[in-house]
Amino acid sequence: MSRPEATIVARDVLEALVGRGQTLATAESLTGGGIGRLLTSVPGASRAYRGGLITYATDLKATLAGVDPGALAAHGPVAAETAVQMAVGAARRCEADWGLAVTGVAGPEPQDGHPVGQVFVGIAQPAAGPLEVHELALDGDREDIRAATTVAALALLLDLLGRR
Amino acid sequence: MSRPEATIVARDVLEALVGRGQTLATAESLTGGGIGRLLTSVPGASRAYRGGLITYATDLKATLAGVDPGALAAHGPVAAETAVQMAVGAARRCEADWGLAVTGVAGPEPQDGHPVGQVFVGIAQPAAGPLEVHELALDGDREDIRAATTVAALALLLDLLGRR
Repeated sequence: MSRPEATIVARDVLEALVGRGQTLATAESLTGGGIGRLLTSVPGASRAYRGGLITYATDLKATLAGVDPGALAAHGPVAAETAVQMAVGAARRCEADWGLAVTGVAGPEPQDGHPVGQVFVGIAQPAAGPLEVHELALDGDREDIRAATTVAALALLLDLLGRR
Repeated sequence: MSRPEATIVARDVLEALVGRGQTLATAESLTGGGIGRLLTSVPGASRAYRGGLITYATDLKATLAGVDPGALAAHGPVAAETAVQMAVGAARRCEADWGLAVTGVAGPEPQDGHPVGQVFVGIAQPAAGPLEVHELALDGDREDIRAATTVAALALLLDLLGRR
């Protein structure tokens, strides 16, 4: 997806949230802040985007994002359960209605038995209950996978906002 | 500065940190995660970059990054003291040796009496004492200012690492 299309998805997510009077926080591993950067490229992003956590080191997924240490040890950093708990933690730590989280393998090397391009996207609205997790299998080099993860995560959240 | 040059600064910062056996965390406001994203574009970034905080909403600078609420109320989000305390908080929250923080006005509108392009960069090594803050006056549109802030912050850290 080209840069202008990525910006449109970010703008649409922010508009959907503003229309609902709700806010968003992020927790990012492989994208390293790219989702927050894209959201804040939109002027007025502060009306709906509160901020986020960049949990690049595995232990920060527990100590910063609040993933249960036992679950993190059992499932590892690249896992559906970890993505969901990161999303919940982002919303709670940043006092937002929604949490959006991504964890996965950008490459160039596989990680702990997970192939390059395997990505989990977690979406949570802790106070209201909704939890979703999506597994992606992305192609391309490190930057392709990071860019595709950024757009896919926002598109999945936009889809969920349209359904609820 | 072009994209390849930005990547070189990020790589040089990571190599300097690895050479010293030290780690880095970030706290970002106007860049919204762009510094973390640039650092993690480098394969192997996890050897020195631990993660960071995206404190886009003003209150997160206190509740997430640990800026003293009284100081935040007195100086506001766009201030030298706030940038330094964000850097200290990033290092502490993410258990890193160094903290690098940016806060400022990306535009398109001035903010609380601060002109578009006014940016403060804070650098801290809490356990060892060094604290630096730099004020920048940047030109261009929102994306120009965010990109220039990202590169300038890393270049200032690289310069400090070369001096100590």
